Amino acid sequence: MKVARFSLEGGEPLFGVVDGEDLVVLSGDPLFHGINPTEQRVPLAKAHLLAPVIPRSKVVCVGMNYAEHKADMAHEGPDNPLIFLKPNTAVIGPGDPIIIPPVEGRIVHEGELAIVIGAVAKRVKAEDWRDVVFGFTIANDVSARDVMFADGQWARAKGYDTFCPLGPFIDTEIDPSNLMIETFVDGELRRKGSTKDLIYGIPEIIEFASDVWTLLPGDVICTGTPSGTGGFVDGQTIDITIEGLGTLSNPAKNRDDRDY
Amino acid sequence: MKVARFSLEGGEPLFGVVDGEDLVVLSGDPLFHGINPTEQRVPLAKAHLLAPVIPRSKVVCVGMNYAEHKADMAHEGPDNPLIFLKPNTAVIGPGDPIIIPPVEGRIVHEGELAIVIGAVAKRVKAEDWRDVVFGFTIANDVSARDVMFADGQWARAKGYDTFCPLGPFIDTEIDPSNLMIETFVDGELRRKGSTKDLIYGIPEIIEFASDVWTLLPGDVICTGTPSGTGGFVDGQTIDITIEGLGTLSNPAKNRDDRDY
Repeated sequence: MKVARFSLEGGEPLFGVVDGEDLVVLSGDPLFHGINPTEQRVPLAKAHLLAPVIPRSKVVCVGMNYAEHKADMAHEGPDNPLIFLKPNTAVIGPGDPIIIPPVEGRIVHEGELAIVIGAVAKRVKAEDWRDVVFGFTIANDVSARDVMFADGQWARAKGYDTFCPLGPFIDTEIDPSNLMIETFVDGELRRKGSTKDLIYGIPEIIEFASDVWTLLPGDVICTGTPSGTGGFVDGQTIDITIEGLGTLSNPAKNRDDRDY
Repeated sequence: MKVARFSLEGGEPLFGVVDGEDLVVLSGDPLFHGINPTEQRVPLAKAHLLAPVIPRSKVVCVGMNYAEHKADMAHEGPDNPLIFLKPNTAVIGPGDPIIIPPVEGRIVHEGELAIVIGAVAKRVKAEDWRDVVFGFTIANDVSARDVMFADGQWARAKGYDTFCPLGPFIDTEIDPSNLMIETFVDGELRRKGSTKDLIYGIPEIIEFASDVWTLLPGDVICTGTPSGTGGFVDGQTIDITIEGLGTLSNPAKNRDDRDY
């Protein structure tokens, strides 16, 4: 099942499930009220898709989780998943612009498979991971690469407003173990890799992260980016495609005085 | 005015304002409903104080913001405030136990002045900082010091559940520019310093942080810890006193199988 969060003509966010060319509208947020369809149907083409979830607590990211990307970054890293945080204020939806702040150096895309947590999760065993996962979506872990190195800590470089595009849908049924992730800038392939090459797989990530902090329904875990190169600049569009999950597409623009 | 969040006999959280030996109960969360007193009064001694705020978005911390502490940590750091995040799931209240997870190395206290944001704040100028601040409280930026170094990123080492004690009250009127901060372990002074020695003061922190991410009402900014040494272990109690803000006291205990 593919779950969407959307608005109609600028109204309040609604939730729906994809059924062919339509969205079947749900009675409320499925993370808190279950998947309860109403009689209402909306043509998908008329829905303005929003970020499929806004975490109440946190976006957890796993860094250096593909061997080739780890080598690209010349990063040693610890003998455990390297986890860090992005704030929920960084989340945007499909089609929303990534606003490039006036910082030194490159802004890069990191196309990733994202886990959406569906239950309060504390010290979950790897084999029980499915009990606490609502579904999967696509994330772009946008990063001001040179700010990462200058600060040492990555919270700022990866936490700017708009630096966490999510969407377009949450798939509640997909098998995440071998999905190809491709990132394109203006149609040109820049990153590619399969989730089968994750150093730490979904079960291990859930076990590790839920031992550190309580995961709440709606929390998102970005599982890491495959290898690749290049960044993006004002005016370009970043498309991330994951098999079975569709494409998350966002234009990029420099911050200007209207971006308040 | 000193604002408390509290419960009575395990009931739902309430909000109140300190008046002598009593709390005057408020009609709702003052961050969202203003300070509206009701007729109800509760003896302070009967109230179970909770964390005075649970951030809807983030706890921002400023690292290495006192020159002596920066030297202690042998940290170069960037030419700007070094900011990082703790998740809201780490927040606990006065008297709640800090649960020490089974990790390698020292667990340390970092007593800090914490800013509680009172308005949506984006690109606020330093001179306008008062417009977006609700008040001030005490924070303990608990840190698994050796995990910080092992991971490189600090999100895990500083983000474990219970690693962000806050309280006891939010003071809406205090002048934060010259407040002595003292941290004690079992009554022994371990850290001491005044906010007059902050490298980046409150106005500069607000300007910098609100340029990176939108701050939301209830977000907390921990302004950094003064110099000092030593950690704490199971069975000890950590008291942080800030002039005019009272004392935040939390016992520490090792995680056990009941801590689910």
